[in-house]
Amino acid sequence: MWVGFFLGDVVTNKQVIFKNFVEGFPKETDMYVKTSSISLSVEEGSNAVLVKNLYLSCDPYMRTQMTLIEDPTDLSSFVLGSPVEGFGVAKVVDSAHPDFKKGDLVWGFTRWENYSLIKNPQGLFKINHTDVPLSYYTGILGMPGMTAWAGFFEICAPKKGEYVYVSAASGAVGQLVGQFAKLMGCYVVGSAGSKEKVELLKNKLGFDDAFNYKEENLVSALKRCFPKGIDIYFENVGGKMLDAALLNMRNRGRIAVCGMVSQYNLSKPEGVHNLMLLLEKRIRMEGFVVFDFFHQYSKFLDTVLPSIREGKIVYVEDIAEGLENAPAALVGLFNGRNVGKQVVIVSRK
Amino acid sequence: MWVGFFLGDVVTNKQVIFKNFVEGFPKETDMYVKTSSISLSVEEGSNAVLVKNLYLSCDPYMRTQMTLIEDPTDLSSFVLGSPVEGFGVAKVVDSAHPDFKKGDLVWGFTRWENYSLIKNPQGLFKINHTDVPLSYYTGILGMPGMTAWAGFFEICAPKKGEYVYVSAASGAVGQLVGQFAKLMGCYVVGSAGSKEKVELLKNKLGFDDAFNYKEENLVSALKRCFPKGIDIYFENVGGKMLDAALLNMRNRGRIAVCGMVSQYNLSKPEGVHNLMLLLEKRIRMEGFVVFDFFHQYSKFLDTVLPSIREGKIVYVEDIAEGLENAPAALVGLFNGRNVGKQVVIVSRK
Repeated sequence: MWVGFFLGDVVTNKQVIFKNFVEGFPKETDMYVKTSSISLSVEEGSNAVLVKNLYLSCDPYMRTQMTLIEDPTDLSSFVLGSPVEGFGVAKVVDSAHPDFKKGDLVWGFTRWENYSLIKNPQGLFKINHTDVPLSYYTGILGMPGMTAWAGFFEICAPKKGEYVYVSAASGAVGQLVGQFAKLMGCYVVGSAGSKEKVELLKNKLGFDDAFNYKEENLVSALKRCFPKGIDIYFENVGGKMLDAALLNMRNRGRIAVCGMVSQYNLSKPEGVHNLMLLLEKRIRMEGFVVFDFFHQYSKFLDTVLPSIREGKIVYVEDIAEGLENAPAALVGLFNGRNVGKQVVIVSRK
Repeated sequence: MWVGFFLGDVVTNKQVIFKNFVEGFPKETDMYVKTSSISLSVEEGSNAVLVKNLYLSCDPYMRTQMTLIEDPTDLSSFVLGSPVEGFGVAKVVDSAHPDFKKGDLVWGFTRWENYSLIKNPQGLFKINHTDVPLSYYTGILGMPGMTAWAGFFEICAPKKGEYVYVSAASGAVGQLVGQFAKLMGCYVVGSAGSKEKVELLKNKLGFDDAFNYKEENLVSALKRCFPKGIDIYFENVGGKMLDAALLNMRNRGRIAVCGMVSQYNLSKPEGVHNLMLLLEKRIRMEGFVVFDFFHQYSKFLDTVLPSIREGKIVYVEDIAEGLENAPAALVGLFNGRNVGKQVVIVSRK
């Protein structure tokens, strides 16, 4: 037994290790790549699953895990000296859990390494549809897709003809919110941080208009794009962007607070000054966490998969190759280097 | 005709005139009292109503009308050189409107003077129940009462056993929110700005606990009063108070934005820094305007009148005597001089 264990099972395992807690913007050197080894078999009766990671997801929320979270609720800090954790697509190599068997494709919570032993696979979903790119399960068919879907349809309660504004609009979530809004018959404007992204929004993702938030006064740009005001603001940015949007909201507007990426790297978040407008304009502003909607995943798939197959929704990905390039890909999220959903390919099969 | 007009109809009319737009805290000298004259008869076919004002209401929202409102929606600025406008209780002296007749008691939009010609009486409600103090129609049975009722029941969607925090809790609205919450079976804590008000909350108005916001650190006081956190925050104050409440909200908390009185006298509102917690804690924050709920007034009366008659709800008023003292009464709202609902008596009958 002891000899067999070493002979058949153990392989090298490249890992992206979290090195230190971060202040301000994260740097590549806050992580490092190391090689260790891992047994590819799972202890019987353990409920664990051993997966080979194929695609890893870089998501803005991961910034919060790079800071020490004193009192964790949904998310804990990354563990110093351990691999970065996040969403990914993986293949089951061995399983002691009745729901998973060798060869299954899954998406969900995994770690940034070649192989991961998932002791509690409750955070894994089986992939049953493989006629779409597997990487989509890190984006449009995974957590960001669910985020856009739940945030837009459940929190924003959109109506046909309404005016919708999406910040960080070319990102993993924003590009979908805009397309969902267009399918609903809304008028949609997005903002992004480069000319290339603005063109993408207008020419590929079907937004009615878009502007570069780095090159325009936010209040004027929103006034120009929404002369009648904003009914729905899908908030990914926070700070000054929220203040500007508040100034241009319509009566009974809704603000879905999905993220505040402009604030994640500040030691103290910016003050938001225009909240009195919530009152005058009867605005509802509501935060949400996608985990609360995961029980609706199959309903979500039934809606979104046909739209992908029929070409009614497209999805833009930014692909990095290899675990070595994963730290730069993650860090790039926070200076807007990525165009579309940032994915890291660990292995294509 | 011409002679008769002067002989029978014209009386002196004391008025509180709005003198100048205000920066910072309003002062008594931003208004002045003058005496003019008014005809007590209404032109037939005009739809107008002539009322004798009995009780006038001092409300925090009136501060916004002391500033030039460039683009009025619900409220316009006070008119320079004209009487202050606001809610009040009045008696109909003459009427050309089919819904009102001489001798009717009404509450609603009127002006700060002995007699007012109301050209469009859509903002007047007939008073049918006079077994309660008439002044209550400026408070518990008027606009502030409707505000507390709609804000608490419609916006906060309270459940039995929830933890409710009310700021400006001894004010016209806050004291009712606390009592409504107690009737629902909630745990209620209020804050106010003096020892006397804190005692009032605990000993007369039935709050479970109360603290003086001027004497305690807000974050610590809320942590002490709500060791398990806040489910519902009824927001009357804004600024630092909102930031402190956000820190102590529970998951799925609700914040009804009723007012932000700490901000009304600032040239630039304070920044609110803790909005990222909306996201993490899935908080819904919603502004509302009481005018949107006035169509439910008779339903509101059916709920609240019996509670008053049975002594289940009490109401604390701060009464100023005479139009001469009205400017000081209004200004006093903004430095917390009033204890309970601030009313001005113009005439007792």
